[in-house]
Amino acid sequence: MAYVTWKLETLERFCSDVFEAFGFDKQDSGRISDVLLTADLYGIESHGMQRMVRYHKGIEKGQIHRDAKPEIVFETPVSAVIDGHSGRGQLVSAFAMEKAIEKAKACGIGIVSVRESNHYGIAGYYAQMASKEGLIGFSCTNSEAIMVPTSGRKAMIGSNPIAVAVPADPYPFLFDASTTVVTRGKLEMYNKMGKPLPDGWALDENGNPSNEAPRVLANIVGKNGGGIMPLGGSTETLGSHKGYGGGMVAELFSSILSQGVTSNECCTFPDKTGICHGFAAIDPAAFGDAEAIKEHFSAYLEALRESPRAEGAEHIYTHGEKEVFAEKDRRENGIPVNDGTMVELLDLCSYLKLDFAEYFPGYEPPAEFSGFAGNY
Amino acid sequence: MAYVTWKLETLERFCSDVFEAFGFDKQDSGRISDVLLTADLYGIESHGMQRMVRYHKGIEKGQIHRDAKPEIVFETPVSAVIDGHSGRGQLVSAFAMEKAIEKAKACGIGIVSVRESNHYGIAGYYAQMASKEGLIGFSCTNSEAIMVPTSGRKAMIGSNPIAVAVPADPYPFLFDASTTVVTRGKLEMYNKMGKPLPDGWALDENGNPSNEAPRVLANIVGKNGGGIMPLGGSTETLGSHKGYGGGMVAELFSSILSQGVTSNECCTFPDKTGICHGFAAIDPAAFGDAEAIKEHFSAYLEALRESPRAEGAEHIYTHGEKEVFAEKDRRENGIPVNDGTMVELLDLCSYLKLDFAEYFPGYEPPAEFSGFAGNY
Repeated sequence: MAYVTWKLETLERFCSDVFEAFGFDKQDSGRISDVLLTADLYGIESHGMQRMVRYHKGIEKGQIHRDAKPEIVFETPVSAVIDGHSGRGQLVSAFAMEKAIEKAKACGIGIVSVRESNHYGIAGYYAQMASKEGLIGFSCTNSEAIMVPTSGRKAMIGSNPIAVAVPADPYPFLFDASTTVVTRGKLEMYNKMGKPLPDGWALDENGNPSNEAPRVLANIVGKNGGGIMPLGGSTETLGSHKGYGGGMVAELFSSILSQGVTSNECCTFPDKTGICHGFAAIDPAAFGDAEAIKEHFSAYLEALRESPRAEGAEHIYTHGEKEVFAEKDRRENGIPVNDGTMVELLDLCSYLKLDFAEYFPGYEPPAEFSGFAGNY
Repeated sequence: MAYVTWKLETLERFCSDVFEAFGFDKQDSGRISDVLLTADLYGIESHGMQRMVRYHKGIEKGQIHRDAKPEIVFETPVSAVIDGHSGRGQLVSAFAMEKAIEKAKACGIGIVSVRESNHYGIAGYYAQMASKEGLIGFSCTNSEAIMVPTSGRKAMIGSNPIAVAVPADPYPFLFDASTTVVTRGKLEMYNKMGKPLPDGWALDENGNPSNEAPRVLANIVGKNGGGIMPLGGSTETLGSHKGYGGGMVAELFSSILSQGVTSNECCTFPDKTGICHGFAAIDPAAFGDAEAIKEHFSAYLEALRESPRAEGAEHIYTHGEKEVFAEKDRRENGIPVNDGTMVELLDLCSYLKLDFAEYFPGYEPPAEFSGFAGNY
């Protein structure tokens, strides 16, 4: 698949205009765009602009309620439960994380559990909202069931990512990972390339390991059983129960504390997805001198990066470092967007009566995409 | 290795007497024994009575300071930092978790970070202190470096377990797992059996995968490099960076917030180990009706257990269920102790001038252990 590179500013203007055309106000459109483009800046293409088509479908199907406003339904000085009323996931989530940050600044800690939201993009975005203010941030979400529990054959848990962001020098710590071994996007990538899946990723409809991407994906879509293994694989030898447990922790903070929809039922309703999130912020000053804590952590991160490398390895990364490098490069040199996504954006413009050529002058979809236009 | 089975009451009396003989008071001896025997009741032999010899060595070497009292060095209504002054890990940790519980009952949430402690046994014990009071409990610890970070060749992070306990019916949820793929005890078991290590567990001194238990263990002891892989293996294909990130989260709550000794330096001092812990308690009532939240979670756990099983699988467990079954069996039928441990206990009795035969009448070590006595 070929890529074409665009300046960040171009994509920012385009994304904002798209969401304004969908009827979101300027501020909300800016927030949704910022979440999507942060993913693209970090090189996490699966969660960037290529999701716009799914959001469009969600609005059209009525699962995303454009005008919904998040509502605080329970609150203490250190905690809150928010009902998202099926609003846009990014907007519900930014509201919830701001609430957690406010509580952490006032009390030292704030935990907010959210029900009835929608897909929220990269988990790390919200954790970083806290770390940008000198706090430790957490974010997790449940999602459509994709993870098969240890010894099971049916997906019962989402990809359930957990993100943790912590202030550090010279760059912050940002851990953001699904609790499945990989996400569905990776399977789709292998499918497109016609390559067999690596061992240890997926299960067939009988709960046996499978390397067949088309079979596993068809089963997922048809809800015929099978799915993706927890981090640690499908048996306890490599720690399957640990990834499964990590997924449950994400479930606890999202769907359990908020009494929302658990992953096994997410995305089975006509008028909502039911997706739930969990957010927390902790002020390091609740544990002493925040600056000294930051220095202590930064020194440990440096020791990790400078520790002896494996034979043939070029770099030991600490979490969030790759994103820092990717962002620097993409802010300078532009963001690559693949032709498949470009064709979707072309369609979106025709649907929303936006002038595609104004944003992307001279772009022509390659011949192999002629059948796609108007069909997404 | 052969096992001999003893009643729980026998082992309780023996353990308490041993720690009293070491000079701990009755209450403290009872607490240390309870942590150890809870591990044995749960079938986690590696963290049970077989650790007594290590604790003895720790006291003799001066790394465990018998008379130290934990001290609160920083505190807010929702948080505290405790200096363990190198006291017994179980005592420092029970004190810290009680503090977290007290804060959660008063404010909804309590987080306590501990520095300068010692090995604390099973992480889950402390998380369960909270869940037994209707709260959600968390516990984590750092430890002597054993985990090699992704692309590294030197162990820089401990086995760094994280435990989460949540009230549920008919039994509570208890997730307790190292963030390495396995713990060192598993390697020692394979070594004793003369079996090659499974793929995906360990790394040699050059950072390459190794199946050789003797080589890996010798390297660990000699600090020559290599060690155990993070959950997810040694490359990003199966999610190595995720287990590595999980280990960092345990480090954050233990050594970072308390400004204590990070895993890469734990156990390198003559007069302390420096081991750090993190504890948290959350009152579900800070998010609504605690009973309704418990019912909602219990229903999801039941749905997981009742979901379709993989071909050939007999049971889908939820976390903590195996421990419930093991405890029931062992309370009724006794706790199996292996001969190697029995010989260590015999030695311990002779060191402490306790009458071994009074606790374990008729026990004779098998002939192959004749060389071990007096040598542990």
